[in-house]
Amino acid sequence: MKIAVDAMGGDHAPEEILFGVARAFDKGFVRPDEVLLVGHPERLEPWYAKVPVLRECEFRAATEDVAMGDSPVKVLRKPLSSIMVAMAAVKSGVAGAFISAGSTGSCVAAAWRVLGPLARVDRPGIAITFEGAKGPITILDVGANIHATPEHLLQYGVMGELFSRNVLGIEKPRVALLNIGEEEEKGNKLVKSTRELFETAKFAFVGNVEGNQLLVGKADVVVCEGFVGNVVLKVFEGVGHYFHDAVKGPMQDPASQQSPLGQVVRKVTQKLDYAEYGGAPLLGVDGLVMIMHGRSDRRAMANALRVSAQFVKADVNRQIRAALDADGRADGAAS
Amino acid sequence: MKIAVDAMGGDHAPEEILFGVARAFDKGFVRPDEVLLVGHPERLEPWYAKVPVLRECEFRAATEDVAMGDSPVKVLRKPLSSIMVAMAAVKSGVAGAFISAGSTGSCVAAAWRVLGPLARVDRPGIAITFEGAKGPITILDVGANIHATPEHLLQYGVMGELFSRNVLGIEKPRVALLNIGEEEEKGNKLVKSTRELFETAKFAFVGNVEGNQLLVGKADVVVCEGFVGNVVLKVFEGVGHYFHDAVKGPMQDPASQQSPLGQVVRKVTQKLDYAEYGGAPLLGVDGLVMIMHGRSDRRAMANALRVSAQFVKADVNRQIRAALDADGRADGAAS
Repeated sequence: MKIAVDAMGGDHAPEEILFGVARAFDKGFVRPDEVLLVGHPERLEPWYAKVPVLRECEFRAATEDVAMGDSPVKVLRKPLSSIMVAMAAVKSGVAGAFISAGSTGSCVAAAWRVLGPLARVDRPGIAITFEGAKGPITILDVGANIHATPEHLLQYGVMGELFSRNVLGIEKPRVALLNIGEEEEKGNKLVKSTRELFETAKFAFVGNVEGNQLLVGKADVVVCEGFVGNVVLKVFEGVGHYFHDAVKGPMQDPASQQSPLGQVVRKVTQKLDYAEYGGAPLLGVDGLVMIMHGRSDRRAMANALRVSAQFVKADVNRQIRAALDADGRADGAAS
Repeated sequence: MKIAVDAMGGDHAPEEILFGVARAFDKGFVRPDEVLLVGHPERLEPWYAKVPVLRECEFRAATEDVAMGDSPVKVLRKPLSSIMVAMAAVKSGVAGAFISAGSTGSCVAAAWRVLGPLARVDRPGIAITFEGAKGPITILDVGANIHATPEHLLQYGVMGELFSRNVLGIEKPRVALLNIGEEEEKGNKLVKSTRELFETAKFAFVGNVEGNQLLVGKADVVVCEGFVGNVVLKVFEGVGHYFHDAVKGPMQDPASQQSPLGQVVRKVTQKLDYAEYGGAPLLGVDGLVMIMHGRSDRRAMANALRVSAQFVKADVNRQIRAALDADGRADGAAS
């Protein structure tokens, strides 16, 4: 099963995307025959000359452009854009997954239209997994849906729990709601209504968590609406950068690097670096779509291929679909 | 002018509050005759015996309790709570400022009712100031108002700008809106409507910033609604803790501590430590109210006294009121 790669998406496309694909080959994450490159032939040509191994990948031409500022639905009228061409390849079964660092909104809109929802899901959500103090913590939605209802958030809880259990291997994931206080009566209208639904859900709901508790491991899955989630994701990224920039100078000294402090600093910097995560899955669509950061570099791209290959193997969607079918209801409530 | 201190508010009250006050004396931040302690006489008595210098402070008795889980308006029916007694002292002019680590909601409700709004302000907002890569960055609202309208956010922009200019000394503060993309068309309904208002404001509006740009200095004042702002504040706190815990072990070695890397690590840890900030001013009420973190320790308390003393000297509210009067309109729009 191939992984389709959007060679045109992202701030540093096609250069960093293509070098990232080559890096994934070098690292042994995937083989060239496992990648389907999608992009503008003429604009990719110069890079093919520089990275000849790319010629070993299957290729599909995409000649329409999607701008980062485009309204998300605009992509639906561009069947020859790299996003739409790649989605079609996933839909037809030529590819088993799609990775893009292009406009998140466009990817979500195209996935929803072309691949369609997984049975009983009303809105897709993007899940990001951080390495917390005690294990991986999945936060969703981080930006697919900024008009969430309590029902959407409940479905994110269900999907996030299944993802955590089936992909991350957490036996009995604890699901929490991101709020501005732990107490039941805290929060805005959306969170309060959602809490009532969560109380009736089948998953292990452990109550509210606050922003300062995300990394401590009080919950394995944290649900929030897409605006808040996107801000959280980017604050983590910003603090990571800030920290990275601060220690960069002293960390150039090999003695510092190898000191116990240097080793810890390197580990923390890595944990807060989004490029290590290699993209975030769009849960709730009938196909595997990985959304990458717009500023992704070759390292992020290579990691996205590594993670996607794992996801293809784990067959996440089949598991989610099976669990939703077994539950009988998409909202995870006892039926 | 005295500063009223809520000796009963916070997770570690009264112990950490009282030791914090004593620490502020030791550090020379304030003198005992500049502090008005407010609390339950019997419950404070054992601590007075341990920290005799506290007897030199003026004291007001408060015998009703406010619980962290209480509905914010409940405090208004408890005139003998430490929050209400202290607010009355500010209202009457006995104290020039009030500091509390108690329930934020209760402090906001009491301040709004007892002190009243500053002329033309519809809702108060809590402003937190972080040390960014290029200077201080003020974010508001971080939790006073989770039902914000575009008009409220505009007033936060006006007050934040005045705070940044008059208290932090930034000559021409750049004001931005926290959003999930830099592009004009990005964001939820609240942010989009607010952006339209910001375009007509008198302050220097520099557009949207994302969560990863908060610390880089693209703007001096960042406006958001209280739910998002509170999550951001706590994510910073959480990452700070995470980082602090990670480096704690290696940083115990004096050689590591004194190495160039150790010095940078110490600086970054401090910057992300909320205890260094000593509380956040509640802007928009007719009196100086400093809100502290519920988990505040003695160090945070001492710093809150230091910062409050500076604020009293700077007479922030007089400056905000004068600026609002000069503007002729509270929304800062050209009149």
